Amino acid sequence: MKPDDKFSPTFHFPVQIYYEDTDFSGVVYHPNFLKYFERAREHVIGAERLAALWQQHGLGFAVYRSDMLCHEGVEFADVVDVRTRFYFESKYRTVWQQEIWRPKGTKPAVTAHIEMVCMNKARQLCPMTPPLIEELGRHFDQAISL
Amino acid sequence: MKPDDKFSPTFHFPVQIYYEDTDFSGVVYHPNFLKYFERAREHVIGAERLAALWQQHGLGFAVYRSDMLCHEGVEFADVVDVRTRFYFESKYRTVWQQEIWRPKGTKPAVTAHIEMVCMNKARQLCPMTPPLIEELGRHFDQAISL
Amino acid sequence: MKPDDKFSPTFHFPVQIYYEDTDFSGVVYHPNFLKYFERAREHVIGAERLAALWQQHGLGFAVYRSDMLCHEGVEFADVVDVRTRFYFESKYRTVWQQEIWRPKGTKPAVTAHIEMVCMNKARQLCPMTPPLIEELGRHFDQAISL
Amino acid sequence: MKPDDKFSPTFHFPVQIYYEDTDFSGVVYHPNFLKYFERAREHVIGAERLAALWQQHGLGFAVYRSDMLCHEGVEFADVVDVRTRFYFESKYRTVWQQEIWRPKGTKPAVTAHIEMVCMNKARQLCPMTPPLIEELGRHFDQAISL
Repeated sequence: MKPDDKFSPTFHFPVQIYYEDTDFSGVVYHPNFLKYFERAREHVIGAERLAALWQQHGLGFAVYRSDMLCHEGVEFADVVDVRTRFYFESKYRTVWQQEIWRPKGTKPAVTAHIEMVCMNKARQLCPMTPPLIEELGRHFDQAISL
Repeated sequence: MKPDDKFSPTFHFPVQIYYEDTDFSGVVYHPNFLKYFERAREHVIGAERLAALWQQHGLGFAVYRSDMLCHEGVEFADVVDVRTRFYFESKYRTVWQQEIWRPKGTKPAVTAHIEMVCMNKARQLCPMTPPLIEELGRHFDQAISL
Repeated sequence: MKPDDKFSPTFHFPVQIYYEDTDFSGVVYHPNFLKYFERAREHVIGAERLAALWQQHGLGFAVYRSDMLCHEGVEFADVVDVRTRFYFESKYRTVWQQEIWRPKGTKPAVTAHIEMVCMNKARQLCPMTPPLIEELGRHFDQAISL
Repeated sequence: MKPDDKFSPTFHFPVQIYYEDTDFSGVVYHPNFLKYFERAREHVIGAERLAALWQQHGLGFAVYRSDMLCHEGVEFADVVDVRTRFYFESKYRTVWQQEIWRPKGTKPAVTAHIEMVCMNKARQLCPMTPPLIEELGRHFDQAISL
């Protein structure tokens, strides 16, 4: 991924491919890529922080859009590198650019553009809390003003 | 399944095997059988009834034990017959005997003994409500006294 | 969906939402929508036909692109209507427009644009067989010439 | 787990619980425990070794029996410890005792007895290869003679 002022730095997250991830065609079943992207986002945000946000503030993130391109099959026993960067589009919405790289790959096997919105338990759009924006904003070189 | 005074009649529930169900070995990935057994139980109990029980009474069923034997592989595009019968062991617990039959099978491909307990949202053991026991008990020829 | 000369008629496929489909936020976990779309496509194409295509010709379909918008949460015990239509973009590629409608919904809860390509077991792009194109083409009013 | 001459030492494998693992009751959906047990076994055996065994010898492992007890719910954001030990029952069969421990748990949340058999691609019972038995046997203090 090329550096881009708008985006956070790139985070790397490894995912090992198990039996459960494949289908009879021999490669990863495509909806599972969305699972790996979500796991990687949860590591960027912090699973503990997500759990606290839900329990204390009744807030969570929902995927509003996922646009994914599958360029290459990913195989059993691969340990892939999930690369993730994001930016705040507004107080309500984050935009994520994510890629899956196979071991020794020269280009990404899967690429995705994903948009997440912040919602309360009644599934109404809500602004992210200022502490959350500040904490996630520490990933950025420049100050974020939303 | 042989008739048995203790058990309800046998319920039949079809499940089609899709890409998502298989793994690279070419057959159904074994934890998925537990999903089909659960779907079949939800049809016996009634999904609407389960949803109401959760929303109105804060009660749900949790699998306490699942003992499963996989005798034969199940393949993509199979439409299997999930056979289910159960009995009330107490006000807290139901016991289920479930089988998966492939098309044209002469014996079950998978067999399972499953125990479910009734719990509240704090995951404390709770008795099933009398109307629930009565409604599920209609499946039995004989009266149930718990 | 509006009629469109390019597209097949709209196919309807019901999917019941089970425990396995939801996550702790209370609604369907978003990657599962891609599973329902795939199940619906398998019913349009025919699971038996897909199995035969793989076993006899070594051909299968791979999702190249999936662009999905999640407008509304889908809940446990819902029986949703998956609406599907498609067209042949070339001998290699089909394009699918798919939607998920909740019971009594006035607009789709989820919409998707999905592209599938035909591949051999070595994951090389291959043209669909003429009989397959002819059989799938029966869904169209007008002749297809690829 | 208590030491036992028959068993290998206990292996520890961490699993983080993500959105995908839970259902609307708020805890892990029970069939997913079988996935974590399988991941842990794949780490004991070695995913690369499993991939090579399949590609070079046409051999794989199938779960013949899984008997699982769920004592306690496991929650989102938990990092559980999957504890695994096993022994060779014969050249064809391994027996696994596995447990899931929550952070700060004083007893296992889930326990399981799992039996795996070695099969070829036609799903016929086959003996494990001598090098495989030898390599896995290195986990044991005592020599294994099958």
